[in-house]
Amino acid sequence: MRDFTDDHSALALNTASLGHNLDGAGAGWSPERVIDACAARGYGGIVFWRREIGQRAVEIGDRVRAAGLQVAGLCRTPYLVGSDAPRGDDLRASIGMAADLGAPVLTIVTGGTEPGTKGVIETQKRLAERVAEAAPLAAAAGVSLALEPLNPMFGGNRTCIFTVADALAVADSVAAPNVGIAVDVYHVWWDRTLAESLTAARGRVLGYHLCDWLETTRHMLLDRGMMGDGVADLRAIRQAVEDGAGYTGLCEVEVFSAEDWWKRDPAEVLDVIVDRFRRYC
Amino acid sequence: MRDFTDDHSALALNTASLGHNLDGAGAGWSPERVIDACAARGYGGIVFWRREIGQRAVEIGDRVRAAGLQVAGLCRTPYLVGSDAPRGDDLRASIGMAADLGAPVLTIVTGGTEPGTKGVIETQKRLAERVAEAAPLAAAAGVSLALEPLNPMFGGNRTCIFTVADALAVADSVAAPNVGIAVDVYHVWWDRTLAESLTAARGRVLGYHLCDWLETTRHMLLDRGMMGDGVADLRAIRQAVEDGAGYTGLCEVEVFSAEDWWKRDPAEVLDVIVDRFRRYC
Repeated sequence: MRDFTDDHSALALNTASLGHNLDGAGAGWSPERVIDACAARGYGGIVFWRREIGQRAVEIGDRVRAAGLQVAGLCRTPYLVGSDAPRGDDLRASIGMAADLGAPVLTIVTGGTEPGTKGVIETQKRLAERVAEAAPLAAAAGVSLALEPLNPMFGGNRTCIFTVADALAVADSVAAPNVGIAVDVYHVWWDRTLAESLTAARGRVLGYHLCDWLETTRHMLLDRGMMGDGVADLRAIRQAVEDGAGYTGLCEVEVFSAEDWWKRDPAEVLDVIVDRFRRYC
Repeated sequence: MRDFTDDHSALALNTASLGHNLDGAGAGWSPERVIDACAARGYGGIVFWRREIGQRAVEIGDRVRAAGLQVAGLCRTPYLVGSDAPRGDDLRASIGMAADLGAPVLTIVTGGTEPGTKGVIETQKRLAERVAEAAPLAAAAGVSLALEPLNPMFGGNRTCIFTVADALAVADSVAAPNVGIAVDVYHVWWDRTLAESLTAARGRVLGYHLCDWLETTRHMLLDRGMMGDGVADLRAIRQAVEDGAGYTGLCEVEVFSAEDWWKRDPAEVLDVIVDRFRRYC
């Protein structure tokens, strides 16, 4: 594993960690303010959400790079399967925004079980078809697609892939060079087969998302812990991601926390992330 | 798979499906009233919770059998690991109650990650030690212990085993003839490796719990669906439990549903369970 004791350039901010605000990134901060605050603290990159970008993708991407940071990725495609998958060209729009922003990776949250079906097998097949259709378009735009498995509590309406092994199976069936997986501590920390699955996913991990799993989780979506505050074995997971899967990208901190971190001053949150990353990750 | 189209004697009620009431089973109904209502509808068995039994275990067990039903099991041991595991002899007390009731199976919900540790590996080892200590006592009382994996959303404070494979690994490391696993649709429906894991668990499944996973789950604990209302592939799971794992026991319906089924007349719920079991399971 790389040693970042005195260097946290491997750290990226997912802007969700500062709270979700429809008018901008985090607690009303503009993308520009977030970029400057990350650059001032030595972050290596930023991951934005589409609603923060609007029509300014090229401008914001340039601004990130001018500040010496990487655009590490973009959140996210629309659902591709399940009852809540939108009709129309929103997938194409998300790929276009990633390209305009200069984001190398676009995260896929799949959506849930297809209407009229049971379980996940048929839905995973349909998902693979949809990703296969989109992969050439994304490749032409210089964008990779990262299938993100979600904690099984999000089955039904939000996801049809639950483990690194699930995500890899879908990616394998797509078999496109720009399709891989994303690994998020919140979703996979509990999986005793994780290290083995990550070894099998060597070269296919396109994103690594950090937070912690609190001993007591009070809300499925919005009660993630800051690194060090929970029970996930963060060092073991990073080792499996980097040594096992060969991931060399940034470590993206993504803490959805409506009742705690989102209520704090974004400047404080950014400082704490750096400290916790150095100490626990 | 057995054909129960015209026979639902394979059906057991877990009294939680009628609501949890500290003064008795379901919506204020006494254990006796639940027993009579199940017998009248042709159920094959009942599973009680300890708080419904109190000091009347022998009496209630005899009453179940006199009504022509089986006591299919007892819920449950205290947590054996994690911050909320009680001190003292509550495990011994739960085994004693199962014996007095004539319940052949006592379900284990393990408890969460051990204080001072991260992840689940160390906790699973400690769990195996505790189960190994208790197994001879349970065997002498004629009681089997069923390790129940819980949906990963219950990691941290409620469980350290998340899949049938996890539960089987702990059971294997205990290697006692009266230690096996319980399989609950709510917890394992999403697992693409389930059939394979159940084949590996042949002869080790001691309980099968039915409900459904709703497409949208609004509460982690108390929003389970009635069979047929959700997205779990109930027929495929039962086939894997019976044909794959060789389970021949009852199918126990356990629907925690604070906002829906618990608000209905228990007589209606019992009727619906029979209907849904025949049609969907």
